[in-house]
Amino acid sequence: MNKLYVIGVDIGGTNTVFGVVDARGEILESGKIEIGNYETAETYVAALAPELNKLIEKVGGKGKFSGVGIGVPNGNYYLGTIGDAPNLQWAKEKNIPLAKMITYATGVPAVLTNDANAAAIGEMTYGVAKGMKNFIMITLGTGVGSGIVINGQVVYGHDGFAGELGHVIVERENARQCGCGRKGCLETYTSATGVARTAREFIEKGDTETILTELPDVKKITSKDVYDAAQKGDKMAIDIFKYTGHLLGRTFADFIAFSSPEAIVLFGGLAKAEKWIMDPIQEAMDEYSLGIFKGKVKLLLSELPESDAAVLGASALAWEIN
Amino acid sequence: MNKLYVIGVDIGGTNTVFGVVDARGEILESGKIEIGNYETAETYVAALAPELNKLIEKVGGKGKFSGVGIGVPNGNYYLGTIGDAPNLQWAKEKNIPLAKMITYATGVPAVLTNDANAAAIGEMTYGVAKGMKNFIMITLGTGVGSGIVINGQVVYGHDGFAGELGHVIVERENARQCGCGRKGCLETYTSATGVARTAREFIEKGDTETILTELPDVKKITSKDVYDAAQKGDKMAIDIFKYTGHLLGRTFADFIAFSSPEAIVLFGGLAKAEKWIMDPIQEAMDEYSLGIFKGKVKLLLSELPESDAAVLGASALAWEIN
Repeated sequence: MNKLYVIGVDIGGTNTVFGVVDARGEILESGKIEIGNYETAETYVAALAPELNKLIEKVGGKGKFSGVGIGVPNGNYYLGTIGDAPNLQWAKEKNIPLAKMITYATGVPAVLTNDANAAAIGEMTYGVAKGMKNFIMITLGTGVGSGIVINGQVVYGHDGFAGELGHVIVERENARQCGCGRKGCLETYTSATGVARTAREFIEKGDTETILTELPDVKKITSKDVYDAAQKGDKMAIDIFKYTGHLLGRTFADFIAFSSPEAIVLFGGLAKAEKWIMDPIQEAMDEYSLGIFKGKVKLLLSELPESDAAVLGASALAWEIN
Repeated sequence: MNKLYVIGVDIGGTNTVFGVVDARGEILESGKIEIGNYETAETYVAALAPELNKLIEKVGGKGKFSGVGIGVPNGNYYLGTIGDAPNLQWAKEKNIPLAKMITYATGVPAVLTNDANAAAIGEMTYGVAKGMKNFIMITLGTGVGSGIVINGQVVYGHDGFAGELGHVIVERENARQCGCGRKGCLETYTSATGVARTAREFIEKGDTETILTELPDVKKITSKDVYDAAQKGDKMAIDIFKYTGHLLGRTFADFIAFSSPEAIVLFGGLAKAEKWIMDPIQEAMDEYSLGIFKGKVKLLLSELPESDAAVLGASALAWEIN
């Protein structure tokens, strides 16, 4: 029988979203389960698998499926495992063979990778990087993730953990503490939480007038608050994005020296700040790039609808099975 | 007829070295021409090609050759061209089709790449990276070059110029001017000339006793002088290597976050400083690597004999033809 469909499963910190996807990237059926209170991978899979099986039956049974693709934080493509995932209660152990467990529970071969790699594959299969052989996907969310594509292949490296660009060190002096235990990681400055941190620092310094101080609780400021203020022309908010974009752009210049990509593709909450962040990124990329790369590398925004992107990305991985 | 041999041609700043190499990496015949006074690529090739043809005839004619592999600064693998090469008088124009010119003049298909990529291919084919699919080659010579191998392939990137890790920016404050026009490039600190620069700075500061000040002309100090002093137990000389190795190691930690290689392989003059530089590199790699990579990545020295490595590296490229 022809393999017409794949399933994409995106396991996130608040819920698990999944869908049946066809070769044109249309989501035919979808569903989700809440993050819930699963204590073990077994109980989690016991809740997830019946939902996947319902969708599989709905479109004609498992014979029509090429595979299940799973995007999950800390996923290892080579091993099909996850582990040490701080935001998933059921995945705190090491080396949980999640791909095998899903394969067994659905009868459809499953593969997994981390969420940023899944996003890169989705972008290459259905999105703005269609047809590109060399690009870098940067996801600007709660953290900063990355998926690197070279010669048309996702870079997994020797151990399956390549592409941790959120943990490249971008500040050496008075650098911010990162959740990874080190200091000065890109993520501490340019994730959504990094932007909020910058906002608090700028407000504390207090050398620019701003409407941000009018927020009910400045300690709880979010990158969305900064965006809203920038939209109203607030100088400090605009400066916060300038600072963030500058750091991203000059760091991208170093990534470019590594793999000379055709494009850098941005995805995630912060990327929605558009010109406030894109213009400073582009300026810094131009300023800091080595001569031979200047003006060559496109800076693009993901074009996948945000609600679907994670499922599409994970699903695209499953086309590579067989 | 069986393709038994390849030719490796290494075009350097002082001369061009070449040799006939068999599949086991033995150099059967070799030769060289001085850098000379060639004003154009045509006159250079007119001098080089007859020398190559002599060797080709000596071992049985061009039918026995898989190809000619050329390693040359600023070489572009995709285009087979070189250009803008500051140290080659005949190669200052752009897009000189050197691979085609050599193919035409010898009747053997020629390919070229930059010298650091050639070194990586040589290491993968005949050297310490034999069998490795993921490693990064760093050449520490007058400049700092790099060849990146991912999934068993050299990374050329979108335009053929990937792997410029000598121009990753490692210092933002009071950074050193680089020949590329920017400031703070790895190369300005960790090339042989970078080490000499560090030595001059350390001597000027003068807060450690040292025998380096006894050199006839401190302005002309070389990395070799620093090595000799370190061998004699000179504290400042040892500190210079510590400083250099520390910068290399912490920068390698960022490279590791990118491609998660099995090993980083060092080659070139500075790598011969062995423990003086290797120990501080290893320490900084361990200190700055992200947790998941700590202790995983080997730090290796090239095992190819220095006099042959460039020719072997270039020759290895030619096995990939056909």
